[in-house]
Amino acid sequence: MKFLVINGVNLGRTGTRERGIYGSETLEEINAELEKFVRAHGHEVDFFQSDVEGELCRKIGEAGGYDGVVLNAGAYTHYSIALRDAVAGIPTPVVEVHMSNVHAREEFRHVSVLTPVCRGEILGFGKKSYQLALESFWL
Amino acid sequence: MKFLVINGVNLGRTGTRERGIYGSETLEEINAELEKFVRAHGHEVDFFQSDVEGELCRKIGEAGGYDGVVLNAGAYTHYSIALRDAVAGIPTPVVEVHMSNVHAREEFRHVSVLTPVCRGEILGFGKKSYQLALESFWL
Amino acid sequence: MKFLVINGVNLGRTGTRERGIYGSETLEEINAELEKFVRAHGHEVDFFQSDVEGELCRKIGEAGGYDGVVLNAGAYTHYSIALRDAVAGIPTPVVEVHMSNVHAREEFRHVSVLTPVCRGEILGFGKKSYQLALESFWL
Amino acid sequence: MKFLVINGVNLGRTGTRERGIYGSETLEEINAELEKFVRAHGHEVDFFQSDVEGELCRKIGEAGGYDGVVLNAGAYTHYSIALRDAVAGIPTPVVEVHMSNVHAREEFRHVSVLTPVCRGEILGFGKKSYQLALESFWL
Amino acid sequence: MKFLVINGVNLGRTGTRERGIYGSETLEEINAELEKFVRAHGHEVDFFQSDVEGELCRKIGEAGGYDGVVLNAGAYTHYSIALRDAVAGIPTPVVEVHMSNVHAREEFRHVSVLTPVCRGEILGFGKKSYQLALESFWL
Amino acid sequence: MKFLVINGVNLGRTGTRERGIYGSETLEEINAELEKFVRAHGHEVDFFQSDVEGELCRKIGEAGGYDGVVLNAGAYTHYSIALRDAVAGIPTPVVEVHMSNVHAREEFRHVSVLTPVCRGEILGFGKKSYQLALESFWL
Amino acid sequence: MKFLVINGVNLGRTGTRERGIYGSETLEEINAELEKFVRAHGHEVDFFQSDVEGELCRKIGEAGGYDGVVLNAGAYTHYSIALRDAVAGIPTPVVEVHMSNVHAREEFRHVSVLTPVCRGEILGFGKKSYQLALESFWL
Amino acid sequence: MKFLVINGVNLGRTGTRERGIYGSETLEEINAELEKFVRAHGHEVDFFQSDVEGELCRKIGEAGGYDGVVLNAGAYTHYSIALRDAVAGIPTPVVEVHMSNVHAREEFRHVSVLTPVCRGEILGFGKKSYQLALESFWL
Amino acid sequence: MKFLVINGVNLGRTGTRERGIYGSETLEEINAELEKFVRAHGHEVDFFQSDVEGELCRKIGEAGGYDGVVLNAGAYTHYSIALRDAVAGIPTPVVEVHMSNVHAREEFRHVSVLTPVCRGEILGFGKKSYQLALESFWL
Amino acid sequence: MKFLVINGVNLGRTGTRERGIYGSETLEEINAELEKFVRAHGHEVDFFQSDVEGELCRKIGEAGGYDGVVLNAGAYTHYSIALRDAVAGIPTPVVEVHMSNVHAREEFRHVSVLTPVCRGEILGFGKKSYQLALESFWL
Amino acid sequence: MKFLVINGVNLGRTGTRERGIYGSETLEEINAELEKFVRAHGHEVDFFQSDVEGELCRKIGEAGGYDGVVLNAGAYTHYSIALRDAVAGIPTPVVEVHMSNVHAREEFRHVSVLTPVCRGEILGFGKKSYQLALESFWL
Amino acid sequence: MKFLVINGVNLGRTGTRERGIYGSETLEEINAELEKFVRAHGHEVDFFQSDVEGELCRKIGEAGGYDGVVLNAGAYTHYSIALRDAVAGIPTPVVEVHMSNVHAREEFRHVSVLTPVCRGEILGFGKKSYQLALESFWL
Repeated sequence: MKFLVINGVNLGRTGTRERGIYGSETLEEINAELEKFVRAHGHEVDFFQSDVEGELCRKIGEAGGYDGVVLNAGAYTHYSIALRDAVAGIPTPVVEVHMSNVHAREEFRHVSVLTPVCRGEILGFGKKSYQLALESFWL
Repeated sequence: MKFLVINGVNLGRTGTRERGIYGSETLEEINAELEKFVRAHGHEVDFFQSDVEGELCRKIGEAGGYDGVVLNAGAYTHYSIALRDAVAGIPTPVVEVHMSNVHAREEFRHVSVLTPVCRGEILGFGKKSYQLALESFWL
Repeated sequence: MKFLVINGVNLGRTGTRERGIYGSETLEEINAELEKFVRAHGHEVDFFQSDVEGELCRKIGEAGGYDGVVLNAGAYTHYSIALRDAVAGIPTPVVEVHMSNVHAREEFRHVSVLTPVCRGEILGFGKKSYQLALESFWL
Repeated sequence: MKFLVINGVNLGRTGTRERGIYGSETLEEINAELEKFVRAHGHEVDFFQSDVEGELCRKIGEAGGYDGVVLNAGAYTHYSIALRDAVAGIPTPVVEVHMSNVHAREEFRHVSVLTPVCRGEILGFGKKSYQLALESFWL
Repeated sequence: MKFLVINGVNLGRTGTRERGIYGSETLEEINAELEKFVRAHGHEVDFFQSDVEGELCRKIGEAGGYDGVVLNAGAYTHYSIALRDAVAGIPTPVVEVHMSNVHAREEFRHVSVLTPVCRGEILGFGKKSYQLALESFWL
Repeated sequence: MKFLVINGVNLGRTGTRERGIYGSETLEEINAELEKFVRAHGHEVDFFQSDVEGELCRKIGEAGGYDGVVLNAGAYTHYSIALRDAVAGIPTPVVEVHMSNVHAREEFRHVSVLTPVCRGEILGFGKKSYQLALESFWL
Repeated sequence: MKFLVINGVNLGRTGTRERGIYGSETLEEINAELEKFVRAHGHEVDFFQSDVEGELCRKIGEAGGYDGVVLNAGAYTHYSIALRDAVAGIPTPVVEVHMSNVHAREEFRHVSVLTPVCRGEILGFGKKSYQLALESFWL
Repeated sequence: MKFLVINGVNLGRTGTRERGIYGSETLEEINAELEKFVRAHGHEVDFFQSDVEGELCRKIGEAGGYDGVVLNAGAYTHYSIALRDAVAGIPTPVVEVHMSNVHAREEFRHVSVLTPVCRGEILGFGKKSYQLALESFWL
Repeated sequence: MKFLVINGVNLGRTGTRERGIYGSETLEEINAELEKFVRAHGHEVDFFQSDVEGELCRKIGEAGGYDGVVLNAGAYTHYSIALRDAVAGIPTPVVEVHMSNVHAREEFRHVSVLTPVCRGEILGFGKKSYQLALESFWL
Repeated sequence: MKFLVINGVNLGRTGTRERGIYGSETLEEINAELEKFVRAHGHEVDFFQSDVEGELCRKIGEAGGYDGVVLNAGAYTHYSIALRDAVAGIPTPVVEVHMSNVHAREEFRHVSVLTPVCRGEILGFGKKSYQLALESFWL
Repeated sequence: MKFLVINGVNLGRTGTRERGIYGSETLEEINAELEKFVRAHGHEVDFFQSDVEGELCRKIGEAGGYDGVVLNAGAYTHYSIALRDAVAGIPTPVVEVHMSNVHAREEFRHVSVLTPVCRGEILGFGKKSYQLALESFWL
Repeated sequence: MKFLVINGVNLGRTGTRERGIYGSETLEEINAELEKFVRAHGHEVDFFQSDVEGELCRKIGEAGGYDGVVLNAGAYTHYSIALRDAVAGIPTPVVEVHMSNVHAREEFRHVSVLTPVCRGEILGFGKKSYQLALESFWL
């Protein structure tokens, strides 16, 4: 199977930004580790990151060929109906992930406009959230 | 007269995305049909589509030369105050359209932040919504 | 095809009431113009106006024989669940119209309890709103 | 004892309107059946139906001579403070009924402005709701 | 000067209905007393009462010839945007009155959709509310 | 047919608790009377009372063998989503009853989380509410 | 009879402040005119003005000896529960007045925390509001 | 490591209740499978199920000896502050799981009072949600 | 006099749970100290603790023989209408206590559904809250 | 130890105002009794009363020398953020008291903006509330 | 030019109160520094501080002779419609300042009822907020 | 010191767009003036403008090298949690500015999701808002 891991706004600066919450590993390092993990299980994975809401929508809109998408939309999670529509518009199952426990942070982070159109949601396990999400496709 | 038809986020994938709601014609086919209709009435029409909120704002900001704008902002309709400001910033009349009856869908689609600064709104007639909106300029 | 145009409360005084918003043509003049327009396209049209919510419900309840209904319910738009039920109770498609852009007026005019059970909505084009609504049936 | 059964807006079209919810018996047939049931228990019953809120208020205001009133106000249930005042203004006990389970339908149907001034409420049993309401007076 | 006193829904049963709040004088007796009072000041007054929202709208819509209107809309005060539009549609000043202190009763009686389009409001003085309202026109 | 009548929290103290609202008959006396009534119509009935939310859920979960359940959940009516899920989880029809008119009491009693998954609701008739609810199954 | 007219915060600057709303007569001129009016009817009147919420409360608390109080609390109307308690604490009837139609102004002026404990309310008649309020005591 | 898997209200009837949502495997079968999975990774697991909120609190309060707790509280998820306090009261990390995507169901299921005090949340993967949650402890 | 001190959910683990808020004395130690205090004043006291909402209701329902009840319901304070009804159902005065200042903690702890039916409330004084509550009965 | 008891707006008229709620003892009598009580325990107490919010703030701001403050702010309790800031600005512990059970009265009395910055709150015990609050400092 | 700097409730205790937020300089020291700054630019400045809302209103009402007012209303910022009316009642421009970033503190500090009638707002720069506000008049 | 001035969506069209609010100087002219001002004080300044939310986030994310950032996010101010996260993610202090007094405009402009993570906010002084913001860094 082939998967796509999408990271949204500000997540390209993971490792330097708010380390207390997100740790000090860069997104590249996290992705490299994930790739190793996925390959070890005999699957393939592509990565995409953008700060631009519309580019994330386009990428999701073209993700029909993948067997599964893992999506950490960053702050767009909380208000981007555009992303929601993009997810709802493809038949590929999408799993929403968050590294932090967003429900233990500010109130505006308690709402996700994406979850209702995703297959499931995994949050609070740091970089392991991505791993569990990918594993959910082949478990 | 010369018009501009603007389609926002995810609408470039019309025809493949959520066919139950939007039908199976592509945006290109819809636009081609619209162009024929406009020309038959002796007018001209340009088309623009983007998934990026900021690019839509820029295009609207530069639409001062048109006699009318028809705008289907997609999901941005429901929260993009940026688009609202762009529309309010030009003297050209803008008509808001939606293919589906957004008021018969999820509650978050019942609010449009754009309508108060548009001339009017037409919704629920599928691709005919665009046609009626264009016709409103010369009727 | 045969259509029915229904005008609700206070609309019988159009032309004398709030001319800044509704213009100075009377409802009779608007209807006469509409009839000419409909006949020119080879169709027929009937007109009904009442200030009484219950009479409007009754008329809609008996409109099953028409090919389409154009409904401007006036102020009842914003709270008459009775009218909503009447519209939902007939198989004939109903198109909601407003002469003014209700979303650019007081906040209580931003809600329509009727739209979710109508086929579509057209608002903001003055008396042309009726024309576009009728045209939507044969376009 | 003598009772009055009042049916409000749109209920005169029961049997043709939204049969999936209200069944295909007409109001006349339901009333005939009710009359037989009441007479079998040695009581009398009158019937009244109107689509007009004000006429319903007037009828209730004049119902002081009955031993009990059974009231299905239809959509007026959800917003007619006028009807509420009419019910509160007579000493006769009023029982509110609904054929459908209004709490299993749209959210705006979950509120009744009438119940606080009625003796009781019976809902969800189709035409049997009327029967149970009448029976509550002599049980 | 010539005035019109309009009483809305359920107010025709004043004197028999909720005497604890409205007293035991009938509307006819109150009106007779008011007429005497107005004539004593050298003016004229007409009276109108209806339980039907649409008929009240029509009467107000035709009240352009009076020098002032005194309006007790009863329960319609709290939700009839139709009446509000009727009042806003005539140039004649309208004074809203209530016999009881509506703000000392149920919460839903604390809102009047009419006051913003009336000249003023007088409430809480029983039948004297009408008298003070009439006097406001010539004081 | 065989029925189950379930009474929830605090209802075991009926007859001693808040007599102004619930009367002075004990639950045992009410149940005895109900049993006589049901038997007189040729049916059978079992009774269950518990103050513990979870025990009520368990009992409902095991009520699949009955032809109908009459449920007065007491205060749990207003917030026990657990009970709601229990009711929704069995195919047996459940009728919700209340002895008092809960809508004429404190505002927090106006909401029932159970009604949407029950067949119907009967409230306000004192102990007769149970009788009418049982009768609804065989009427 | 002897009355007390109390004016609250900012009203001492009437005549210079927001003339478009309150006119150009000073409070002293208005009071002088009121005194003449009251004396002409054979009664007496005292006046009090303060910008300080607590001083207004104290004055009201000591107003037990008057036959009636006319109170324009200015902006305190909308939030001073302290004034409300002061009014509720004396047996003397208090009539609330406003010169402007507060319901036709900003939304925060639509709520009065005082009205529920006043006998009545008169608003929108400029300085005549005071006159009508005083007259209500002897009419 | 040793884990505790806790299932709350109504979950003991999994396999027979709402199969469209929860599948037809019983809780016993799911637990047996989980136990095999945990043991295969060299860990131990205990199971607990109760319909009673207080018993669930007690069990959690005594779970200090485990290396991790997996908690599916069922309907209590949405309102049991008692459970939240129990979770917050132990140092053992708790992972919240749901078999269904609760955010794609009724609105009252979108709120979890437990997540802010849990380490993380996994939802939407059917019985695999438990597996992923357990794995999160040793990954 | 004889009193009953009731502790609700999770409070049996006081002394080990959230010591930063509740201190490190166990409930047994606190109760022992209270008993000494009550006896020193010549009165008697019983203690009851349960995690189960229904058992707390039952205990309160049977507390008619005591001269006073001191109730710390724990988290049930914030949503248990069942407990509220139990308290309202006995003539014995109940004093609500909290060890912590619940109003200085999370917002959901600011609401108590119990206070309106209790005689009074004492909060924020740690274990001294119980002492002050007991003393209130004989002071 | 030395304490300060502060009474806010309208409380200087205790004994004459709303006796049904506050009793017929004057504030002077209550204070005299409190002083005797405090002295009997070997402590000292000062008293302060003002109707003016700003004077109460000033007094609290200067209360740094006391060992404890007992504060009954009267109606200011519900909206005076100024008082809240004054309390938060001194290191002396402040105990909030109310003679009546404010939670059993109007809804606007259920909110205190002061409690979050006070050490604790005692309400509902009449004049004994002050006594218990003072005792909390030396218990 | 001549300016007036007004400080509201509790601000007279700046330097001793909540130093973590407001620093340890007294208001007198801050004012002295400001005066030096203003004089250095060739302008004059007066200072006023009061804890009493009504006195602040009076001072603002008399500030018509100044070229500009700098207003830090303290806690009154969040609810004093009286101050808002005072500001709106003079033609002199008023600039609102706050030393702290009120939007980074408690939610009730996020609302200012004054800003809509001020020329501008400057917040978050400690005592420099005053300086920037004064400078805004001559920049 | 070196500063960065960032202008967000639609602000590139300043000078042509809504001149009544923003004046007729272009952004280039404003920036040129600012640069002169900053250099005159011996500092440096860079400028950035984009209509695209994601590009603004990226620019802010890379602004760690500046001594201060001045941010006018335009309409994104009101909903872009993405921008908020970008600001919170860098150690450089950010000052939020608005040319107009956003609190005197539509209600949706009264909320800024950015202020809580900025150092301060300056609004309402036209182009001088930028100047004051820059000056705040070296004052």
